[in-house]
Amino acid sequence: MTTRRKKIYEGKAKILYEGPEPGTLIQYFKDDATAFNDQKRAILEGKGVINNRISEYVMTKLNSIGVQNHLIRRLNLREQLIREVEIIPLEVVCRNVAAGSLSQRFGLPEGQPLPRSIIEFYLKDDKLGDPMVAEEHITAFNWASTQEIDDMMALTLRVNDFLTGLFAGVGITLVDFKVEFGRIYENDFSRVILADEISPDSCRLWDSQTNEKLDKDRFDRDMGDVIEGYTEVARRLGIMKEMPTVIQGGLH
Amino acid sequence: MTTRRKKIYEGKAKILYEGPEPGTLIQYFKDDATAFNDQKRAILEGKGVINNRISEYVMTKLNSIGVQNHLIRRLNLREQLIREVEIIPLEVVCRNVAAGSLSQRFGLPEGQPLPRSIIEFYLKDDKLGDPMVAEEHITAFNWASTQEIDDMMALTLRVNDFLTGLFAGVGITLVDFKVEFGRIYENDFSRVILADEISPDSCRLWDSQTNEKLDKDRFDRDMGDVIEGYTEVARRLGIMKEMPTVIQGGLH
Repeated sequence: MTTRRKKIYEGKAKILYEGPEPGTLIQYFKDDATAFNDQKRAILEGKGVINNRISEYVMTKLNSIGVQNHLIRRLNLREQLIREVEIIPLEVVCRNVAAGSLSQRFGLPEGQPLPRSIIEFYLKDDKLGDPMVAEEHITAFNWASTQEIDDMMALTLRVNDFLTGLFAGVGITLVDFKVEFGRIYENDFSRVILADEISPDSCRLWDSQTNEKLDKDRFDRDMGDVIEGYTEVARRLGIMKEMPTVIQGGLH
Repeated sequence: MTTRRKKIYEGKAKILYEGPEPGTLIQYFKDDATAFNDQKRAILEGKGVINNRISEYVMTKLNSIGVQNHLIRRLNLREQLIREVEIIPLEVVCRNVAAGSLSQRFGLPEGQPLPRSIIEFYLKDDKLGDPMVAEEHITAFNWASTQEIDDMMALTLRVNDFLTGLFAGVGITLVDFKVEFGRIYENDFSRVILADEISPDSCRLWDSQTNEKLDKDRFDRDMGDVIEGYTEVARRLGIMKEMPTVIQGGLH
């Protein structure tokens, strides 16, 4: 079905197609995994299906607590109908525990709790390696306004509170996560809403008991079956009991 | 004289000795030059003398427009009497024109004017390579308070206005500069004042006509006589006509 639709944009893990109505898009979840700014690639069979389901679940719950986002509804195993937004070219990262580039930058042991949640902004620019930016850069280069930065930070902290609780309830520590935002225009005013996805591709999720990684770091660090971790997250959230057989056959 | 004094701290380009009275220090300007986080080193004969003079000149002028700083008075060719401050572990960089790491980080051609002046913070930590930090990191790790960040930014913008004017008047473009701040305590309250130095070691200064570099980049990029550039800055500011002969002999 999607093959007849006009492709709007293809990223590393998703494709956006023209939607059925103006102001809508179809977000297609691929199985492609990349790491280290595209230097490592693989197909993880079924990843797109799981992420579609997890992201639908989280975005729906967030909407119900008033964190508006681009999801309209899930269409099928790999596709969601979403609102078209003007994407803000920033990745907003929220960290609760030291890991990844924060550990490296400040010499903090991975796993060390942070004094408080820290929000970081990275410029979405693969060629430049998604460099970290400060508010000064964001406003000087007009990537977002001061008001939009404030709105993104407030929304990200709400997402953090919700996700921390959601995952704590199923024995998972939310170490950090990345979100993206977009503008929607209504009556000449623009507003910022949550966009993109929330999934084990974009969150660091550790088993609270064992600290076992259940997220994309399994792929980045060659830690064995990546899909097993993703499926475990979906299973604990009560979303999927096992991979649909159609996926086990690798048809989608 | 300084040899009998207690050394408090030795950095790459300066030494701090105990001062004659409590709450004072003596700041000694060395001739040592380092680049690329200490991987390149040299002795640039006379650099300390010139920087002592330029920094004295700039700090005195800044004080007269109400930008308080640690300088009490210059003592001799290489030494200043300064107020002891609790140094804030941040380098505050103010940029007017793209150069150096900003050019690299955002792929901007060196020499491109920025849409507006941009202030950046870097953590003073040689082992970590002085990483760039955002306000979120500064407040979360308690390196400075929100109020101190605001004060540092306001003071840095005033320094930028003054220095831009000062150098424009003598045909020099202030591309960017680095300053440091310290806390002083008075009646249980602390206040932030300008510390460290302002010199061709800490400023990018280009001849406005030719764009010739008159600063430490001459050293970093092996661009010939570094002292010539520094001396030219001092000469244009009307501070020194030529290197004192005592220095040409390399006695200090």
